[in-house]
Amino acid sequence: MIFKDIDKIRYMGPDNRDPLAFSFYDPEEEVFGVKMSDYLRFSIAFWHTFKGDGKDMFGEPNVRRGWSSIKDEMTLAKIKIDGLFELCEKLDIKYFCFHDRDIAPEGETLRETNRKLDEVVGHIKDHLKDGKVRVLWGTANLFSNPRFVHGAATSCSAEVFAYAAAQVKKAIEITKELGGENYVFWGGREGYETLLNTDMSLEIDNLGRFMKMAVDYAKEIGFTGQFLIEPKPMEPTKHQYDFDVANSLAFLRKYGLENNFKFNIEANHATLAGHTFQHELRYARINGMLGSVDANQGDTLLGWDTDQFPTDLYTTTLAMYEIALNGGLKPGGLNFDAKVRRGSMEEKNLFAGHIAGMDTFALGLKAAILLLEEGSIEKLLQERYSSFSSGIGKEIVDGTVSFKSLESYIIDRKNIFPEPSNQEYLERLVNWAIANAAR
Amino acid sequence: MIFKDIDKIRYMGPDNRDPLAFSFYDPEEEVFGVKMSDYLRFSIAFWHTFKGDGKDMFGEPNVRRGWSSIKDEMTLAKIKIDGLFELCEKLDIKYFCFHDRDIAPEGETLRETNRKLDEVVGHIKDHLKDGKVRVLWGTANLFSNPRFVHGAATSCSAEVFAYAAAQVKKAIEITKELGGENYVFWGGREGYETLLNTDMSLEIDNLGRFMKMAVDYAKEIGFTGQFLIEPKPMEPTKHQYDFDVANSLAFLRKYGLENNFKFNIEANHATLAGHTFQHELRYARINGMLGSVDANQGDTLLGWDTDQFPTDLYTTTLAMYEIALNGGLKPGGLNFDAKVRRGSMEEKNLFAGHIAGMDTFALGLKAAILLLEEGSIEKLLQERYSSFSSGIGKEIVDGTVSFKSLESYIIDRKNIFPEPSNQEYLERLVNWAIANAAR
Amino acid sequence: MIFKDIDKIRYMGPDNRDPLAFSFYDPEEEVFGVKMSDYLRFSIAFWHTFKGDGKDMFGEPNVRRGWSSIKDEMTLAKIKIDGLFELCEKLDIKYFCFHDRDIAPEGETLRETNRKLDEVVGHIKDHLKDGKVRVLWGTANLFSNPRFVHGAATSCSAEVFAYAAAQVKKAIEITKELGGENYVFWGGREGYETLLNTDMSLEIDNLGRFMKMAVDYAKEIGFTGQFLIEPKPMEPTKHQYDFDVANSLAFLRKYGLENNFKFNIEANHATLAGHTFQHELRYARINGMLGSVDANQGDTLLGWDTDQFPTDLYTTTLAMYEIALNGGLKPGGLNFDAKVRRGSMEEKNLFAGHIAGMDTFALGLKAAILLLEEGSIEKLLQERYSSFSSGIGKEIVDGTVSFKSLESYIIDRKNIFPEPSNQEYLERLVNWAIANAAR
Amino acid sequence: MIFKDIDKIRYMGPDNRDPLAFSFYDPEEEVFGVKMSDYLRFSIAFWHTFKGDGKDMFGEPNVRRGWSSIKDEMTLAKIKIDGLFELCEKLDIKYFCFHDRDIAPEGETLRETNRKLDEVVGHIKDHLKDGKVRVLWGTANLFSNPRFVHGAATSCSAEVFAYAAAQVKKAIEITKELGGENYVFWGGREGYETLLNTDMSLEIDNLGRFMKMAVDYAKEIGFTGQFLIEPKPMEPTKHQYDFDVANSLAFLRKYGLENNFKFNIEANHATLAGHTFQHELRYARINGMLGSVDANQGDTLLGWDTDQFPTDLYTTTLAMYEIALNGGLKPGGLNFDAKVRRGSMEEKNLFAGHIAGMDTFALGLKAAILLLEEGSIEKLLQERYSSFSSGIGKEIVDGTVSFKSLESYIIDRKNIFPEPSNQEYLERLVNWAIANAAR
Repeated sequence: MIFKDIDKIRYMGPDNRDPLAFSFYDPEEEVFGVKMSDYLRFSIAFWHTFKGDGKDMFGEPNVRRGWSSIKDEMTLAKIKIDGLFELCEKLDIKYFCFHDRDIAPEGETLRETNRKLDEVVGHIKDHLKDGKVRVLWGTANLFSNPRFVHGAATSCSAEVFAYAAAQVKKAIEITKELGGENYVFWGGREGYETLLNTDMSLEIDNLGRFMKMAVDYAKEIGFTGQFLIEPKPMEPTKHQYDFDVANSLAFLRKYGLENNFKFNIEANHATLAGHTFQHELRYARINGMLGSVDANQGDTLLGWDTDQFPTDLYTTTLAMYEIALNGGLKPGGLNFDAKVRRGSMEEKNLFAGHIAGMDTFALGLKAAILLLEEGSIEKLLQERYSSFSSGIGKEIVDGTVSFKSLESYIIDRKNIFPEPSNQEYLERLVNWAIANAAR
Repeated sequence: MIFKDIDKIRYMGPDNRDPLAFSFYDPEEEVFGVKMSDYLRFSIAFWHTFKGDGKDMFGEPNVRRGWSSIKDEMTLAKIKIDGLFELCEKLDIKYFCFHDRDIAPEGETLRETNRKLDEVVGHIKDHLKDGKVRVLWGTANLFSNPRFVHGAATSCSAEVFAYAAAQVKKAIEITKELGGENYVFWGGREGYETLLNTDMSLEIDNLGRFMKMAVDYAKEIGFTGQFLIEPKPMEPTKHQYDFDVANSLAFLRKYGLENNFKFNIEANHATLAGHTFQHELRYARINGMLGSVDANQGDTLLGWDTDQFPTDLYTTTLAMYEIALNGGLKPGGLNFDAKVRRGSMEEKNLFAGHIAGMDTFALGLKAAILLLEEGSIEKLLQERYSSFSSGIGKEIVDGTVSFKSLESYIIDRKNIFPEPSNQEYLERLVNWAIANAAR
Repeated sequence: MIFKDIDKIRYMGPDNRDPLAFSFYDPEEEVFGVKMSDYLRFSIAFWHTFKGDGKDMFGEPNVRRGWSSIKDEMTLAKIKIDGLFELCEKLDIKYFCFHDRDIAPEGETLRETNRKLDEVVGHIKDHLKDGKVRVLWGTANLFSNPRFVHGAATSCSAEVFAYAAAQVKKAIEITKELGGENYVFWGGREGYETLLNTDMSLEIDNLGRFMKMAVDYAKEIGFTGQFLIEPKPMEPTKHQYDFDVANSLAFLRKYGLENNFKFNIEANHATLAGHTFQHELRYARINGMLGSVDANQGDTLLGWDTDQFPTDLYTTTLAMYEIALNGGLKPGGLNFDAKVRRGSMEEKNLFAGHIAGMDTFALGLKAAILLLEEGSIEKLLQERYSSFSSGIGKEIVDGTVSFKSLESYIIDRKNIFPEPSNQEYLERLVNWAIANAAR
Repeated sequence: MIFKDIDKIRYMGPDNRDPLAFSFYDPEEEVFGVKMSDYLRFSIAFWHTFKGDGKDMFGEPNVRRGWSSIKDEMTLAKIKIDGLFELCEKLDIKYFCFHDRDIAPEGETLRETNRKLDEVVGHIKDHLKDGKVRVLWGTANLFSNPRFVHGAATSCSAEVFAYAAAQVKKAIEITKELGGENYVFWGGREGYETLLNTDMSLEIDNLGRFMKMAVDYAKEIGFTGQFLIEPKPMEPTKHQYDFDVANSLAFLRKYGLENNFKFNIEANHATLAGHTFQHELRYARINGMLGSVDANQGDTLLGWDTDQFPTDLYTTTLAMYEIALNGGLKPGGLNFDAKVRRGSMEEKNLFAGHIAGMDTFALGLKAAILLLEEGSIEKLLQERYSSFSSGIGKEIVDGTVSFKSLESYIIDRKNIFPEPSNQEYLERLVNWAIANAAR
């Protein structure tokens, strides 16, 4: 047992103030007929939770973990896997996500690296056997190693491109082997530091070629998981090619890849790109591209990726609203791509962070479903756009009008003055839902 | 009657979804022994509510008000005053705030302008007689007229400085005459567009001279209301001298004015300056400078002053937390320096906006008091700093140590490793309070 | 004559410090064999220059113009047109851009409005006869009138959609009639204030329908000018659908319109979207979509559209670098969508602002061409990507490899370590060009 | 010799394009009678240049240095010192700055740490003997070690406060021993992550106590160097107490310390706080508080401290303008608190980065002095404020007026309308200076 001092986390009800118990997350509770745990497909992010050491740009590692005395890297790798499954069990979380380099150390060549990786993958498979926990998605870390300093699929070096291709090949293979339901591409270094040294045209074309090869290879080996792109506008680069959902969609449409991918949308990446999280979810949803979610939050007064555990009820309520309208996220989920603050350096804080996120999503889910069931927002929406359901509006939607016919229709009308939009009232309805969700 | 279609707003309880009724604001309700209306000294901002016409930088006026057909400017001015008192009565709001130029039109000279102003002031006094409504604060508009294009007290023109002085003199006089409890200085044009044409040293010195004269004049005429500075970092200027609370405090301390002023803190100005609203309230509070509040909210993804009605429960909860620790705001209050969105152009929206703000503050108050009464946050705080209550910590606070004695104390110690700070748990406690406040 | 006190602006050479003479803009000067005026297709923006009155969100109109005493709106409209052609002549500017509503006032119905518009258009045609000045682009103002409060092509009202369609129909017609070389779509209100009341899917589909009808109508009447979309992320709305070039490209590709449009890219809009101006130009260029430019600059420390005259040499140098690599902008140009600061309220400031912009672009052009002719940047670029010109890199580009073959190639390699990227040196090269451009 | 492949850097003149030669920095050149090297007191920042390893939040160390194979930490520490003095000599830089923990490793207790530090200090003293290089400033690193996770002087732990005090005591001692001309306080962790766990009042009082003890100790040991505070608004914390110059000045004035400190102003910190670099320099200057400069630049489209080498001519021109008006910076200087981009991983890039910064400051100096000598800006400034030199304006400045007398003066005046402010022209003058500085 890794987390010796912490027991299984229990649901204690809305008045609970124990940091190590749930107040709102009750997996068996039904929210308008659906089990809460079916809506909330939570996932552990292996990297933050098992590789994060508390280091920041101005500070040294400071976390306190049971495994810190272990020196042998393969032993340590396996012990962390044991810790992962223990954490899942204690938090009642059914999924996890990983990068290839999180779970196993690198060797001198890719062949050697793959060998180490296979050994840890074998260890994971043992844990997966009882079916209690599953892989939400796997991915390849194409940003930490110095070889990726100028990018991976968009590197100026063909050797690096080849290396990245081979690494993703292996990452897809092990994701398949572990039964992963999705595979994610986050292009952390796919962008530029300055345009003065960047052939943007070649780089984006190469990214298109890379993605095409990934799709082909998945077909070849029969990997049927969903491919996901995770947009982020910047950091560590000055500018990333997958800036936001719309930008990435332009990319996919250019290379004819829009049917092979969906999006993994991160709350903190959305705000860094100048969008609300809800905006990105909505935009992906109406384009049929909402795949999965990195459930965290940023600080809009700070300009970097703080990856905080999601504790904002508005964010979770509006996210669950979009997700409910999407018919859920399956095969995607809610991956806690979040790290406890550097001052939360103990194991109990790691649990408390996840509990905070789960509870906030649970209450957000209840508020979202309450809003949908109560129906005022959707009803106001229908009324607002009702002019497009008949008459000239219907003709516009049906495509049976032209500028000429519309001109004839309107040219002599006076006093065209729209109805109010009631934003203040709508914001109050969200408060109503939050305030009533816990009752 | 101005707002003919709208009745007095009633409290309907937490499940209310009527846009024209309160869900959480019940003036008579006691929150841990104090009447809600004693905590929540709401105020109407005359400018947005009676002068705002829906215009924005890209759009023409669009609001629909009962008085729009009135052409005579003095008649119109008085009718708006009637509307103000009617609005106060229907919303159960006891205070209002105004600029001199909101309530009466300008003439060709200041003498003529003052005459018009006096006439409207007389009309207001008639309304005030029954004592139901009071003036929270008055102020002078030193930014709209073209003469203030380069500032008022910090204009490059001595004539403009003189004009501003005379205008503020009159504004203080009428604030006194109307029984105003505070007088506010917002230096909308006191700043610069480019440093290339700015003698910052002279300008800030002049601002100091101006404030000193204001203090002297208030004493001279026996105005005992509180003087308040309202910081804002920018807009309409590139940079305002009263950037934030700390900056303005540096100014006051330089000119020996810190005992003559407190701050009027606006939520949206705080975020434009890169601070949370709570930060500005806290910083003012611990310096004994928290005077009053402009209760609105901005949009941290937008870079201008949106002046939205406050509907964010976190903002209101944490604001009321600071205000409660400040022992309230008296003689200050919560002034709705907020405008309904341009799409909310009807009178009912104007009411709905205020109701949204009042309800959100009411629920925020309940959550804040619940947090304080429950006590976990304050208890954790005490524990966290307990090392300063005895031993070496107490000596530090008492000022009986030096670098030398501290060195002797610490030079051979090992393993100095602080306790965790529990941010994730503390954020959950705020959610606990919000979720339980309405129960 | 409108601008009585100002003579034709002359070129005085690099040491000139007269605000009303050019220091770097010499239309006849050849820059590596091309006439400067052929590169720099400057254009007056009618709205800022002839309709801007100095008003801002906190200030009343304050500009001082010769025409301010004229009351009759049609007389005034024509006098401003006279002023436009006089300004063009005195500044040696060959193009102008306009919105329909800038040049003529509105009537009670669209029919009446069109009649007024036709009258002014006739007046413009008289001026155009001598061929000295041309229309760079026309557009329709679909954002100022209250009817567009919730959008135009994306309004919730079908009547408003119809009105917008009829208005654009007419705007295209007059642009054609006036020989306009382009037609621009800026969707100032095509976006949302809150997602709570927004059917984003219907709205964006409607925008697609609208654009399709515009394309059809242009074909029908034989308008051969280039259609341009001008992206902007926000303001006046919280969020605009044409957020940036990539977002708008995703839109065009979705509705099969990518061959019918290019982009009109504004510097200030680029930075509001979190991109450099150069980024947006580059991204459009490599996608074959760079059409025209709104030549202004913003202030990256301010969060709104300041529309300043472009005086930053880096911005103009790097812009002209991209434009040169694009083979120029024809039939597009450099439209000064810029307004003098509110403190620059006199006519001489209006000239000084344009001169500042023209001079900064002229020097930027010289620096850009110097960089291209000197060739270091392009040479370093070629070297940097040389691994894609042969061997495995060439195979990647040719599409003859797969993840499998790339894995075989790389799996046993060691020490893959890229070359440095020399950003600091490249930035120095830009300084070298700026410092040497004027010599 | 450490940097074996790089010779002494030579001045080659304005047309130079060699990355390893100066184009504008000629130490012996006189700029209007003053030697360039007397204006430009450049300094190496030991931390970035000798401790930076290329690591970022998403990437592993990647720099390539001659010393990378050395394992013994004291040997390595001394070799880096050798490298420092070699770099100074080759770049013709006369100063360096350091943190205590940069130059020597830590031991288990502070006593042991100090012993190691003394050993390296002895090695530095050997190098200093010939007087060619001097210490601009020393400081203590109170942010990297885990003990400082909650702050140093503002930690919640009294033990940490004591440790920080003892560490600063030693750092002042060695700065004195090495002849350092200044001592800097940067409170990287002096702030908070969340107000929910922060006793801001106690923390800021403690910071005041700490600074007071530092002042006392410096007097006690006869350290006569200038104490400097370096403001920064955020990062690594959510909010730092020394947010900007004004905020820090409010702090100093509160605790009566304003005569004991000046400011070390960093360009990138200024922009993170929402100010231009010039604003912070100006504000410090007019308060008599401009002490020294951290010469770097940020990216205003990115929200974190990128610490880039300064290559923007506007920044350096306007900075040197303020510095010249300040009568120089002595005993302060221009410290390159800058790191080469992660892609610039070779030793030649390290040189190229410093050369870029030095050249950009050299050209900026020439442009600034040219502006001052030409005099238009200062002349316009004088004219602009001339109304304060006589008449009512002089009375205002002399303090002989009151609100009453100003009212009498102005109450019947009409048409008060200020002169234009000419921003566009002033911006052109800066371009004129940059374009002519190199000629």
